[in-house]
Amino acid sequence: MKTLKERILADGVCIGTEIVKVDSFLNHQIDVALLDEIGKEFARRFSGQQVSKILTVEASGIAIACMAARHFGNIPVVFAKKASPNTMTEDLYGAEVKSFTKGTVSVVRVSKRFLNPEDRVLILDDFLAHGEAAIGMAELVRQAGAELIGVGAVIEKQFQGGGKRLREKGCRIESLAIIESIKDGKINFLK
Amino acid sequence: MKTLKERILADGVCIGTEIVKVDSFLNHQIDVALLDEIGKEFARRFSGQQVSKILTVEASGIAIACMAARHFGNIPVVFAKKASPNTMTEDLYGAEVKSFTKGTVSVVRVSKRFLNPEDRVLILDDFLAHGEAAIGMAELVRQAGAELIGVGAVIEKQFQGGGKRLREKGCRIESLAIIESIKDGKINFLK
Repeated sequence: MKTLKERILADGVCIGTEIVKVDSFLNHQIDVALLDEIGKEFARRFSGQQVSKILTVEASGIAIACMAARHFGNIPVVFAKKASPNTMTEDLYGAEVKSFTKGTVSVVRVSKRFLNPEDRVLILDDFLAHGEAAIGMAELVRQAGAELIGVGAVIEKQFQGGGKRLREKGCRIESLAIIESIKDGKINFLK
Repeated sequence: MKTLKERILADGVCIGTEIVKVDSFLNHQIDVALLDEIGKEFARRFSGQQVSKILTVEASGIAIACMAARHFGNIPVVFAKKASPNTMTEDLYGAEVKSFTKGTVSVVRVSKRFLNPEDRVLILDDFLAHGEAAIGMAELVRQAGAELIGVGAVIEKQFQGGGKRLREKGCRIESLAIIESIKDGKINFLK
């Protein structure tokens, strides 16, 4: 997605070889017009798939999921909540998610009322890095007996392997900007 | 806002005399079409105020803020992040927020890059209860030297006093549904 890549190059800030900060337009301050374009593009890529629900995880995924849902005919958005591992109850689906940057393990949870076997679920998130969050959400979909249509990421950091892991599991991934590497403060997109 | 009140009566679940759960359409599963109506109504109420930025706090405020921003001409949304009190740095505005339900104190933070003295800020959130979150966000606006235009809440629980506290400080509050009391599992709206 050209506009997005241009924006990442213009306003993204590289930290070392692993991190690109996009907090001026994606996950702290939000450019709503850009998000609208992003949502439209996800709807184009997953058109004809009869997606019935968008699943994301708090916090930054929520904006992306809601702006996208409009372009899928206002289907419901469900956002998984992050909690400490010891607070699971029977009314919730839950999956562990490891954070490589923070070195912690949390649990993402969704109420059983909001994911059903009839659902055709699209997972959306801001980043696809090591893939832990997406794999956790896919596990929630599996627990619900729902169908996983695919995973859409605004930015995939290919060098962290999450996309590869998910594709090897047979999951369809659509990433709007794929970063191959970050070197000497320069972002290299996959051609 | 009539549609909203009807929806709260239809799908809200009362727990005791203090809590109404609206997680089937507002803060876990999200009805994007309803949020679009809510955003339109906030824009109507704050029209002519030249709002330049919408400030909210993660997580459930993000959906409301983004859907509303479209009706304010795609102005930027900034969401404050919640963190533990010991992680403040010089690059951030920060304010303490007490949680009555959880009995904890957290800090809401915003990067100094995203709130400026020129900003005319509207604070939006899902609930206005004791007012702690809104007062914390108002403090961030004050630290930035920006102008606070007002606070918009989807649901105000009048009996918890947050609206009164803020109005007494001279803050303009617009709540789309004001709950006067919850008694015997019945929600009573302010006439």
